[in-house]
Amino acid sequence: MRIALDAMGGDHAPGAVVEGSLKAAEEWPDAELYLLGHEPLVRPLIGSQPPTNLHLQVVEEWIEADEEPVRAIRRKKGSSIVVGCRMVKEGEMDAFISAGNTGALMAAGTMVTGRLSAIDRPALSPVFPTLDGKGMLVLDVGANPDARPEHLKQYALMGSLYAEKVMGQEKPRVGLLNIGTEEGKGNALTKEAYEEIRRLPVHFVGNVEARDILHGVCDVLVSDGFTGNVLLKNTEGIAKGVFGRLKEELTRNPLTKLAAAILKPGLKRFAQDLDYKEHGGAPLLGLKGPVVKAHGSSDGRAVFNAIGQARRFVERGVIPGISEELQRLERG
Amino acid sequence: MRIALDAMGGDHAPGAVVEGSLKAAEEWPDAELYLLGHEPLVRPLIGSQPPTNLHLQVVEEWIEADEEPVRAIRRKKGSSIVVGCRMVKEGEMDAFISAGNTGALMAAGTMVTGRLSAIDRPALSPVFPTLDGKGMLVLDVGANPDARPEHLKQYALMGSLYAEKVMGQEKPRVGLLNIGTEEGKGNALTKEAYEEIRRLPVHFVGNVEARDILHGVCDVLVSDGFTGNVLLKNTEGIAKGVFGRLKEELTRNPLTKLAAAILKPGLKRFAQDLDYKEHGGAPLLGLKGPVVKAHGSSDGRAVFNAIGQARRFVERGVIPGISEELQRLERG
Repeated sequence: MRIALDAMGGDHAPGAVVEGSLKAAEEWPDAELYLLGHEPLVRPLIGSQPPTNLHLQVVEEWIEADEEPVRAIRRKKGSSIVVGCRMVKEGEMDAFISAGNTGALMAAGTMVTGRLSAIDRPALSPVFPTLDGKGMLVLDVGANPDARPEHLKQYALMGSLYAEKVMGQEKPRVGLLNIGTEEGKGNALTKEAYEEIRRLPVHFVGNVEARDILHGVCDVLVSDGFTGNVLLKNTEGIAKGVFGRLKEELTRNPLTKLAAAILKPGLKRFAQDLDYKEHGGAPLLGLKGPVVKAHGSSDGRAVFNAIGQARRFVERGVIPGISEELQRLERG
Repeated sequence: MRIALDAMGGDHAPGAVVEGSLKAAEEWPDAELYLLGHEPLVRPLIGSQPPTNLHLQVVEEWIEADEEPVRAIRRKKGSSIVVGCRMVKEGEMDAFISAGNTGALMAAGTMVTGRLSAIDRPALSPVFPTLDGKGMLVLDVGANPDARPEHLKQYALMGSLYAEKVMGQEKPRVGLLNIGTEEGKGNALTKEAYEEIRRLPVHFVGNVEARDILHGVCDVLVSDGFTGNVLLKNTEGIAKGVFGRLKEELTRNPLTKLAAAILKPGLKRFAQDLDYKEHGGAPLLGLKGPVVKAHGSSDGRAVFNAIGQARRFVERGVIPGISEELQRLERG
């Protein structure tokens, strides 16, 4: 299995990408890892004797985090993101992982790797932390801000398959993000989508309210990309704000620092449970090949987790599974 | 000034409503407070010699928290919520406050009190906590789940006026909840609304992302009711989950309990800063009279705060102000 990695994307690139890849190369000797990176920056990090299954694939350009996505992928055809998506499309690579510019990866995934023929819009699908540590797959969080009911139906199907095969959840519970739990609640979109999803061969548990996400009331949460994006950023913003303020309180004076030392193991465990990076990256579901968006702030461990996830994504045949289900549905 | 209170609504009714009203009657002798309540339940609480400006207005029925809103207000015409909204419409009361069934209050506000003629949809407008303690008015959080761009424009105008007059913010910064900060980002709704709001006589600061809310990047945040409701419930859910887990860590063993005792003042201050109840209730903006939804879990202090807020809502002429602004806009 060949997995390509964007060595140039993410806040801690290329260091974190190389670190995670070195660890993964050792952990999974059957995986051939290809770092798409600028030679002068990446070569020194992998050393003169890298593991035999870790390779450098030289690229001369890359897309910065703040570039306008569509323009960037048009102008930088030799960039790590465009090259990675193209290699997946052409079958040279079995999967591609990037912690870089999210918009550019979504655009290149859609325009270069390409959509499955029965999928109207791909969905960016991160795992949200839950208090039980299992996590919840949420799709879409922004690939498609103007979703229609049939898109949400496709998300439910793809999310359920992914949660089962990659996250190892038996009969994943699929919920629809809504503003009330009763049937018939919501806006025009969710009311229609509810009717579509209930007819699917998935374990649909109905409407789910945002207040219950942390409690893990479902395994797969379906949402339009606008609301899902707001949810993601709100969650990140609160987590950051709360832990920031907590740190302030803990370091206020020598006495609180003493208290902090006592509480440290528990608080650290808590922070880890709520850490996105523990759950690997977000697959772009609906494409012809596995493309995974790792968190922008990924460290070596997050990259390692994303590689493990991409491996299962390929190995367990998620994309052929999605194609089959869609064909079965179309035949009625 | 006459302010009616739903003595029967909220998790801690009628106790908390009476408690808050007794305190408010003393604080503001110019306000005549009317408790709409069931006599056997409320009379014993106000005692035989209540303050001269605190009155019991007897109602024989009320709407429970889990009743279907529209059916409930049709069937229970003598309920505290319907009576309160009617008294405001008929000018018998200057304002009405309820901590009861949110859907029923929104329905009675719209159907009984009635909308201002130039307003298509009223907006439920709570204040979200921010780390600086100032709070941010967010509208709408669920009165209108299928918003159109012109609704968002009206929210911007009403929210700005309310923030200025009731919350005392000079030149309130109005933001549009969106999934990117740059102009041109978003879904079809926010792209159009952006163009509408920028032409208003308000201090528009552009698109705001959910991750920046806690940091108080604007004073008034405009959103469709679906997304706003998801935002509200997500924030409440995370706050509850995080403080719950924190409590677990702090009470794990005798040593962590000692640490907790040291940190208590700081953590308490923090929890208060993030407490919705500190900021009073949520006005239903766009109605012909002041109707305020207090939080369902309101204690006496929250009711007291909501009364102070309703007082300013009336005194500072927010609703005449909204009407004037709308007329001025229509004349171009």
